[in-house]
Amino acid sequence: MALAGAAIALLYSVVLIFNIRRQDPGTPKMVEIATSVRQGANAFLRREYTVIGPVAVVIAVLIYVFIDLPQKTNGATTVGFMLGAFLSALAGYVGMAITVRTSSRTAQAARKGLGNALTTAFHGGGVMGMAVVGFGLLAVSAFYLSYESLIISKPVVIAGLGFGASVIAMFMRVSGGIYTKAADVGADLVGKTEVGIPEDDPRNPAVIADNVGDNVGDCAGMGADVYESFVVTSIAVLILAALITAKAAASLSPNTEASAFGSLTSIITSNQLLVYPLLLGASGIIASILGGFYIRKGIKKDPMGSLNIALIISAVIAGAIDIVISSYLFKGSYLGYSLFASAVVGIVVVVAIERVADYFTSYRYPPVRSIAEASQTGPSTNFLAGFSVGLQSTAPSAVVLVLAILISYYIGYYAAPSSLPDSSRILVGIYSTAIAAMAELSLTGMIMSIDSFGPITDNANGIVEMAGLESSVREVTDELDAVGNTTKATTKAFAIMSAALAAVAIFFAFQSEVNNQITASTSLMAKYGLLPGQTLTFSLGDPLVLVGLFIGSLLPFFFSSFLIQAVGRAAIKMVNEVRRQFKEIPGIMEGTGKPDYAKAVDISTTAALKELAKPASLAIVTPLVVGFALGPLALGGLLIGSVVSGVFLAFMMTNGGAAWDNAKKYIELGNLGGKGTPVHAAAVMGDTVGDPFKDTAGPSINSLIKVLNTISIVFITAIVMYALFV
Amino acid sequence: MALAGAAIALLYSVVLIFNIRRQDPGTPKMVEIATSVRQGANAFLRREYTVIGPVAVVIAVLIYVFIDLPQKTNGATTVGFMLGAFLSALAGYVGMAITVRTSSRTAQAARKGLGNALTTAFHGGGVMGMAVVGFGLLAVSAFYLSYESLIISKPVVIAGLGFGASVIAMFMRVSGGIYTKAADVGADLVGKTEVGIPEDDPRNPAVIADNVGDNVGDCAGMGADVYESFVVTSIAVLILAALITAKAAASLSPNTEASAFGSLTSIITSNQLLVYPLLLGASGIIASILGGFYIRKGIKKDPMGSLNIALIISAVIAGAIDIVISSYLFKGSYLGYSLFASAVVGIVVVVAIERVADYFTSYRYPPVRSIAEASQTGPSTNFLAGFSVGLQSTAPSAVVLVLAILISYYIGYYAAPSSLPDSSRILVGIYSTAIAAMAELSLTGMIMSIDSFGPITDNANGIVEMAGLESSVREVTDELDAVGNTTKATTKAFAIMSAALAAVAIFFAFQSEVNNQITASTSLMAKYGLLPGQTLTFSLGDPLVLVGLFIGSLLPFFFSSFLIQAVGRAAIKMVNEVRRQFKEIPGIMEGTGKPDYAKAVDISTTAALKELAKPASLAIVTPLVVGFALGPLALGGLLIGSVVSGVFLAFMMTNGGAAWDNAKKYIELGNLGGKGTPVHAAAVMGDTVGDPFKDTAGPSINSLIKVLNTISIVFITAIVMYALFV
Repeated sequence: MALAGAAIALLYSVVLIFNIRRQDPGTPKMVEIATSVRQGANAFLRREYTVIGPVAVVIAVLIYVFIDLPQKTNGATTVGFMLGAFLSALAGYVGMAITVRTSSRTAQAARKGLGNALTTAFHGGGVMGMAVVGFGLLAVSAFYLSYESLIISKPVVIAGLGFGASVIAMFMRVSGGIYTKAADVGADLVGKTEVGIPEDDPRNPAVIADNVGDNVGDCAGMGADVYESFVVTSIAVLILAALITAKAAASLSPNTEASAFGSLTSIITSNQLLVYPLLLGASGIIASILGGFYIRKGIKKDPMGSLNIALIISAVIAGAIDIVISSYLFKGSYLGYSLFASAVVGIVVVVAIERVADYFTSYRYPPVRSIAEASQTGPSTNFLAGFSVGLQSTAPSAVVLVLAILISYYIGYYAAPSSLPDSSRILVGIYSTAIAAMAELSLTGMIMSIDSFGPITDNANGIVEMAGLESSVREVTDELDAVGNTTKATTKAFAIMSAALAAVAIFFAFQSEVNNQITASTSLMAKYGLLPGQTLTFSLGDPLVLVGLFIGSLLPFFFSSFLIQAVGRAAIKMVNEVRRQFKEIPGIMEGTGKPDYAKAVDISTTAALKELAKPASLAIVTPLVVGFALGPLALGGLLIGSVVSGVFLAFMMTNGGAAWDNAKKYIELGNLGGKGTPVHAAAVMGDTVGDPFKDTAGPSINSLIKVLNTISIVFITAIVMYALFV
Repeated sequence: MALAGAAIALLYSVVLIFNIRRQDPGTPKMVEIATSVRQGANAFLRREYTVIGPVAVVIAVLIYVFIDLPQKTNGATTVGFMLGAFLSALAGYVGMAITVRTSSRTAQAARKGLGNALTTAFHGGGVMGMAVVGFGLLAVSAFYLSYESLIISKPVVIAGLGFGASVIAMFMRVSGGIYTKAADVGADLVGKTEVGIPEDDPRNPAVIADNVGDNVGDCAGMGADVYESFVVTSIAVLILAALITAKAAASLSPNTEASAFGSLTSIITSNQLLVYPLLLGASGIIASILGGFYIRKGIKKDPMGSLNIALIISAVIAGAIDIVISSYLFKGSYLGYSLFASAVVGIVVVVAIERVADYFTSYRYPPVRSIAEASQTGPSTNFLAGFSVGLQSTAPSAVVLVLAILISYYIGYYAAPSSLPDSSRILVGIYSTAIAAMAELSLTGMIMSIDSFGPITDNANGIVEMAGLESSVREVTDELDAVGNTTKATTKAFAIMSAALAAVAIFFAFQSEVNNQITASTSLMAKYGLLPGQTLTFSLGDPLVLVGLFIGSLLPFFFSSFLIQAVGRAAIKMVNEVRRQFKEIPGIMEGTGKPDYAKAVDISTTAALKELAKPASLAIVTPLVVGFALGPLALGGLLIGSVVSGVFLAFMMTNGGAAWDNAKKYIELGNLGGKGTPVHAAAVMGDTVGDPFKDTAGPSINSLIKVLNTISIVFITAIVMYALFV
């Protein structure tokens, strides 16, 4: 049934692709521009895949030699890694391939009216959404079906799948993020600030690179990222489910606790807990497709409102399907309804976090207006205001996160019979939290459809400008672009939240697996100084755990520094190149000389691939070094440390960045003097600072957290065995 | 002997005061300026004390009613709170009172040569340093002597002292930080950026407010802050020592473990562990005084090098005294030499962290130069470069911190005989880490002497400028001012590091105390679901601990947002006022009209006191709400969460801020075009952004961490008893 869900998603995306390809791609000029953007994007992804492909192969070989061979798992981890990695790259590619084709069609549709453009862009996003969730569900279900018995006896083999997905997603996120912002910041700094030409002006030599960047960063990067969230969260739930099932089976056999499970016996022993999350994923696909039908050509105004309604329709449908699944699968038991309640928590999180992101990033509310007002006293006060709005947004986001964890955990904990051993009840509680995360992610199809809006309309806007279409078209695409800015911020908050919930679930899987291994071997028990019956506790009172927490908390800060520095460095190169072209190529400003777009594309491409090495190595090497040197306690601390600081740094950056962007847009609407004033200039500078925050560093922290988690789980057996200092 | 150390420190500071007062305060014009700065600073502190005095009294009453009365501790916690708070306020006041008097004398001494000015400024700083460490040691020793037996039976009573010190220090840090940066940013934005007049130009209406700010922020705020670090670290060590002593006494009585303590028996049972940290503090005072003699009037060049040599002399002398103390007190035992080794770790930390801060904040090295170069493409790239330098500096700082914790911990752990129960060995390990922190802080006298350099020379510089002294004098004070910038950054790193180490030590005291209480009562054992022999573990696998970690990690982000916003808001008011004065008061620019300095002073004062409420309430209320609602597990998570994210946010802000400042100075030396170019303008804007990072938000995070720690320890008994949800 889950495979059927994946098939439906992929099939529906094919339908949407045909639908879009049938549409009019516009005038020859529009097609020409779209083609050069597509070629730039394709060229970048090709170069990127030739760089990261060999790295992935090396990792796969290492996994095979050091993990699969000694553990006699028939290459399952390696197969999972390759499957996860391949589909991650494919999800990114499909997302990008369709958005570059949709943008000129959206521009063309905008000539017929808002509803047409809205529907075209939404369907383009839908392809991406369905591909992401379809590939995710396909990867997890196919792997599960292939290795079911192995997964139940040794749940961590599935982690290879997550590691493959996350390592490729990180590569694509980081390099795409650097590419897009190097081009964007470079284009803006000279174009808008120095020369005073508008966004997407064809006289700007970096304009094609900027549009390519939207596709390789916002589409390919985001596609791989959310695919990864889906896969990693699914495997976290599956590992927890397998652990519960194993524990139940063990405690059921001879002793008195059998009765405690009562009617749950059959449920827990027959793998329902493993099947449930996959069905939730499938239900979200159906819900997303149905909700999407609300977006029609007839819509005349308030595109944001329409998208919100479509999302709410999907959420309600998902809830309705989920209750049927829960009550059917768990045979009307209390546990089934409790898990359904947790799924509802996850769905509510989507709506709540969307409200928080909207409040801090939309110019209808005080935070963004305070940034606009601070621009009146120059760029410095604009920077400070935007930075503090970003910082401030962390608090309500934290409240949503903390409540989601507490409520979903206790729902599960109290759903497990109180006569069960506490360790089993805790596992059920954590499983329940993971179900909330899974339910949140089940709406990925819809969320991604809404999100991919942003880059599609951004590109459509660029094409309208560059092709010199009539200004009424620009009004339509401008309105959609503003909507896209808000939905992009929302999706990032969605991705961060899911990363945090998944990380919590994965930590528990990690902890259980460490103890399963140690307690199975008397020599390991001795190595870790444990007496019979004792287990390793990840206590804050243990200096190794504390040190791990410090190192983990450091990572998002240090990792971000590379990304921001990379964007800054590449942007400076771009600025110098654009300045040079304005100076050396005669007639650019008059429109008689043609800028050398290819040179700008090359600067972004080279920088993005070169700057990938350091942060990627940091994410992969640190957990291995900490694990093998300081042991599983420090590594566990590292995992939690990275998520507790990482989520807030990520929220700060993505919300702050979007707020800066919309403060600028608010001024451009004519407030506080409007375009061309020093106030506007200050706001443009703030937006430039916010760009790498929201599109490079902030979202990459998600990938960092997930890579740390998955690599730790994959190498856990070797780490427990060979850790030096425990 | 510790009291004698305190007496020596205070006596020496009186000697320095007389020494300074004897010196020539300069021309009548200089005296006039210094007087108006002094009056402004005094007026601010008076208004501040009338605001925070009543708050402190209310807190004292609450502590008496809810802590001392029910626990029958004879008002010890309340007395400690009041003593700690009073001396905190006094340390701030003394520091400020002497620096406002030293600055005009430093300016006058600068007319006689670099060595004279250096010595005067250094002695002014010395008063502050000696006062801070003298009051700190006085508070701790006096309280210890008054309540020795109570402290041994119930160590947490001493926490009141730390809470008093930290709550007042937080008030002074936050309000002083807002004051100084509102004035500074406001003055710079109009003066330097819009009107193009130099720093400290008397035509700038905010110039007096700016100079007052240096005194109330950098002197009074820093004085209270470091005094607090000293007190809080001391009490952390004392609590740990008392816990070890109590444990040893308990395990020594009837059972076989007595022999395990071997020759340590007498050591551990006769309070040497409690006395040792106080003696370390006293040794640092002697070392600081002796090292200070290196700074003489005859010094002709390289003031930074001379200060570094003085610091190293102090460090060596401190080490030499410490080894005598250790070997004498611990009778030549292995434990004594091990603890000495930990003290050396603490002293090495001072030097290591100084090197890290210097590398990232001095223009002799690549990081600051990269910011200067990024200024060539405008404020946005300058901002991104500075931000990423700040982020990057977190990594080496983390390495120093992690190594210091691991090395000092294992030194202590292995110094305790292996036949001891593991819990006792862990406590000795943590005690050893706390000793490293104490040794670090023992050099406070010297570090503060060097630090207070910054504001004194900054003010001296201002007086030179405003009084229109000859430009050769300005060269001397300029050179000293640049040195002051570096030493200020170093001291902040020193304070952050000590806060982190103290927080780790306090967490262990917290954990032990929670368990002591719970295990002493069968009803509490039942409430916390513990079986006989079990203790409460602060495990990462517990959702309450995790939730606490998230909330704790959030706090520094959210807290900073208020401070940065407050500075931004107040600076905007200041900018508008300065702009208004330039427009409305005729002849300001020509020097014929006199600006209304008092109005600017009033804006800063009002803003600083008004904006204090929210962040201060956040710091005080959050731990109580989390503690009473979610119990000690969540509160323990909160304490660790706040330190693991807080240190890196603080390092990022203080190092980044100083790097921005020195990037500007580097350009002002004539590099990349020098003053008056757009490159310089961009660097000035970056400096303006960095100001509230390095002088308001960054250092206030220290105070936040310590307030969270001390309030949690003070209320721990009530929280364990009445927590709702555990």
